Amino acid sequence: MATKTNSGNFFEDYSVGQILTHAVPRTVKMGERALYHALYPARHALYSSDQFAQDCGLPFSPLDDMIAFHVVFGKSVPDVSLNAVANLGYAQGRWLLPVWPGDTLRSQSEVIGLKQNSNGKTGVVYVRTTGLNQHDEAVMEYVRWVMVRKRDVNAAAPETVVPDLPNAIAAADLVIPEGLDFSNYNFDLAGEPHRWGDYEVGEKIDHVDGVTIEEAEHMMATRLWQNTAKVHFDTSARPDGTRLIYGGHVISMARALSFNGLANAQMMVGLNGGAHANPCLSGDTVRAWSEVLDKAETSAPGVGAIRLRLVATKGGAPFDLRGEDGKYLPSVLLDLDYWALMPL
Amino acid sequence: MATKTNSGNFFEDYSVGQILTHAVPRTVKMGERALYHALYPARHALYSSDQFAQDCGLPFSPLDDMIAFHVVFGKSVPDVSLNAVANLGYAQGRWLLPVWPGDTLRSQSEVIGLKQNSNGKTGVVYVRTTGLNQHDEAVMEYVRWVMVRKRDVNAAAPETVVPDLPNAIAAADLVIPEGLDFSNYNFDLAGEPHRWGDYEVGEKIDHVDGVTIEEAEHMMATRLWQNTAKVHFDTSARPDGTRLIYGGHVISMARALSFNGLANAQMMVGLNGGAHANPCLSGDTVRAWSEVLDKAETSAPGVGAIRLRLVATKGGAPFDLRGEDGKYLPSVLLDLDYWALMPL
Amino acid sequence: MATKTNSGNFFEDYSVGQILTHAVPRTVKMGERALYHALYPARHALYSSDQFAQDCGLPFSPLDDMIAFHVVFGKSVPDVSLNAVANLGYAQGRWLLPVWPGDTLRSQSEVIGLKQNSNGKTGVVYVRTTGLNQHDEAVMEYVRWVMVRKRDVNAAAPETVVPDLPNAIAAADLVIPEGLDFSNYNFDLAGEPHRWGDYEVGEKIDHVDGVTIEEAEHMMATRLWQNTAKVHFDTSARPDGTRLIYGGHVISMARALSFNGLANAQMMVGLNGGAHANPCLSGDTVRAWSEVLDKAETSAPGVGAIRLRLVATKGGAPFDLRGEDGKYLPSVLLDLDYWALMPL
Repeated sequence: MATKTNSGNFFEDYSVGQILTHAVPRTVKMGERALYHALYPARHALYSSDQFAQDCGLPFSPLDDMIAFHVVFGKSVPDVSLNAVANLGYAQGRWLLPVWPGDTLRSQSEVIGLKQNSNGKTGVVYVRTTGLNQHDEAVMEYVRWVMVRKRDVNAAAPETVVPDLPNAIAAADLVIPEGLDFSNYNFDLAGEPHRWGDYEVGEKIDHVDGVTIEEAEHMMATRLWQNTAKVHFDTSARPDGTRLIYGGHVISMARALSFNGLANAQMMVGLNGGAHANPCLSGDTVRAWSEVLDKAETSAPGVGAIRLRLVATKGGAPFDLRGEDGKYLPSVLLDLDYWALMPL
Repeated sequence: MATKTNSGNFFEDYSVGQILTHAVPRTVKMGERALYHALYPARHALYSSDQFAQDCGLPFSPLDDMIAFHVVFGKSVPDVSLNAVANLGYAQGRWLLPVWPGDTLRSQSEVIGLKQNSNGKTGVVYVRTTGLNQHDEAVMEYVRWVMVRKRDVNAAAPETVVPDLPNAIAAADLVIPEGLDFSNYNFDLAGEPHRWGDYEVGEKIDHVDGVTIEEAEHMMATRLWQNTAKVHFDTSARPDGTRLIYGGHVISMARALSFNGLANAQMMVGLNGGAHANPCLSGDTVRAWSEVLDKAETSAPGVGAIRLRLVATKGGAPFDLRGEDGKYLPSVLLDLDYWALMPL
Repeated sequence: MATKTNSGNFFEDYSVGQILTHAVPRTVKMGERALYHALYPARHALYSSDQFAQDCGLPFSPLDDMIAFHVVFGKSVPDVSLNAVANLGYAQGRWLLPVWPGDTLRSQSEVIGLKQNSNGKTGVVYVRTTGLNQHDEAVMEYVRWVMVRKRDVNAAAPETVVPDLPNAIAAADLVIPEGLDFSNYNFDLAGEPHRWGDYEVGEKIDHVDGVTIEEAEHMMATRLWQNTAKVHFDTSARPDGTRLIYGGHVISMARALSFNGLANAQMMVGLNGGAHANPCLSGDTVRAWSEVLDKAETSAPGVGAIRLRLVATKGGAPFDLRGEDGKYLPSVLLDLDYWALMPL
């Protein structure tokens, strides 16, 4: 009676406008924080110290920006990507409210686009996923699109709807946490002297450090976010017996490594786009480099916004990205485009 | 002066009626919860979300049923099973009170049976172990029996006492947490639509998902419960250099995997029996299937009880259990019999 | 523009009297406790149970002594030992105040000695590192000295200053936590009957148990303390492709293993000295033995002080330490000298 187990949604199960209520709300506290900081070399001071956060105008230290992302994302996996062939992209992501220890998060998605592929076997599903706290306030939202298998290749193709997705969040649309104030920012305690004004558009930073990935670590991380995709856990799920590492693990690793050179890019507030260029496997040594894409002022005292490309690699030279054919080099794991907040 | 180290109890150290006070009480909080959910794909909503628990009549989310078991069990290891050859069985287990974050647990055991084996080298010790919180209230109890080495093979055999152990807890003896009410149960947030009435006695469910086991994970789990048995940690403890995985790790893994098909079997309340059929080692891929053994109503609003067989495997076909000789197949790791609570 | 990344200090960057403010303060709570107890077989009751701590006169259970050490130490790595060739020694370490869940720790170091090596390529830097809580109270302090590379071998040698470092903290200088009272100490719950009076100077204890080390575990531990030294994480950082295990991981492992025979050596209060005799690598099985070096009374009711040598090994016979040449045997990982508090 396998009918009681969840076999996930297939392409023809989706319709534009459909709302997916994702299961298993989760109360997150300082235990999740401790694990996050054991799994990644996370050091951004605002997410490490209540005192530092208070000196920046917050009541205490919120949970890391990427904890919010992972929890919200993980819940969507059983409904959105259990039968996904590929996670194709992200857009229009914004962190809307800090997540405080003790908050209970749930998430839901709206289907905003559908496009059957020409092979008739798969299609692309666009969803806008929103994370909500126990007060029904949105804490983050983002669009992602995935390629999903059809259950029945003979099922009729839906009307094609492709949402209009700008390349980046406009700086004016970024949401700054209430009370945030970098006027009295302590650069010594934060770890680096470089302020917003010290970064130039076009500047590239090699974050130098590397971490060799272990199976136990990526599985613990992925489970912590209640992401259940088989390929991350079960060596029999893929023909070559390897466990594919959750793309979010690479994002968190690269973001943490970027501390070395971007220690003051304290909070992620916008996710403009992102591609998981190549699979990451246990044994790979992950490194990262960043490029400054844009800068903007904000309305908050002492707070500037910086738009960064964050590239994670497993080899190759720093700043390598694409080959002559315009495709990502095999050594590139991740190409992420985000906005962060930084002291002026 | 090795006399200061604990060499554990041998068969002749036990007497019927003896009370063993187990060492090292432990305060458990949300950090243990976070680790539990990183080590196992635990998703039952009542143990994940304070909001969900409140909607079910509880003040907030208790710690997972198996956290209570592991903490209570772990404390008994130095006194009961340090010199055990085998953990033979469980019976008459009941969860008596939820464990709340901040509770301090200790445990004690009463020796309720002794039977020397015919070879004269070992004997079977039966203990009833009770976990107590900081208010001296029992939070859980269970009987287990282990085969223990004699220190001196010439020591006299004790009088044989074998306790009468029913095959299962009677449904009427299950303890329902105070206030539990599934009348307004949210099946969407819980993750599956299947209610108590949808399950039939005899029904079998293949939980589909698998997890390949890592050394780091089972050691972290086992240490977290302060279980000190050498075979789990030290590659020199066994002739083949492998680390034997704590049987409770397999229980928790299988119980978590059973979410897929039994997402609404929210709380374990009775442990009728269990056998660790074969050893589990790092690299094994653990899967699980369940069989509905019985159903019963309870006095709590909207709450039914379901008796389940939970089988963990490391290969083989779903629902395989015993060979023609009546013995467990080599692929079977665990055969557990428990009662859970489920919305009507 | 690699200038934004931290390349660490070199020998000529230090001057005697210099104060180094270490970055990234950290709020530590019960999540860090849970992880510590998952990573090490920690069982000392005072650090496990709020009830036990209250029965010993404390308001509740503080965070483990070695958690305090690791957090304070980790922060000093980017400023002190990023370019270190070797961590040469510790002295004059004292735990000054318990660290309570919720405390925010930061750390700073004063350079108290400098000595260029005769090869002109490296020098020894002596620092006194102090950990401070959110009230600017010192929670611990210790001296360590490291061998650091010169950036420019032609840089002038500084004036040699070698601090006077006594072999041990005088018992009278140990700081006993306020309120600590072992008059009603519960030996049953603590796990062993041996009291201060039962230990003799010169007595040696083989702690019997062993733990085989995994990459995932030591990396999680090291990250949790925000220790960023490359050699612990990146297989490309050392010619042989191995990850060198953070010396503090070995200290914590050995201290936890010493429970078996020293369960009542509840709190570390003095760090007299220590040497990381040989590198520890994944796959090594760590064991420990102790030697009683000294004993002293204290002013606190029922509380005695015991000075212990704690030796961690990866093979060899118990109590082996040095070869005929006076050098540490290759099997010796750690030789630590500390004071602990124990019930009279």
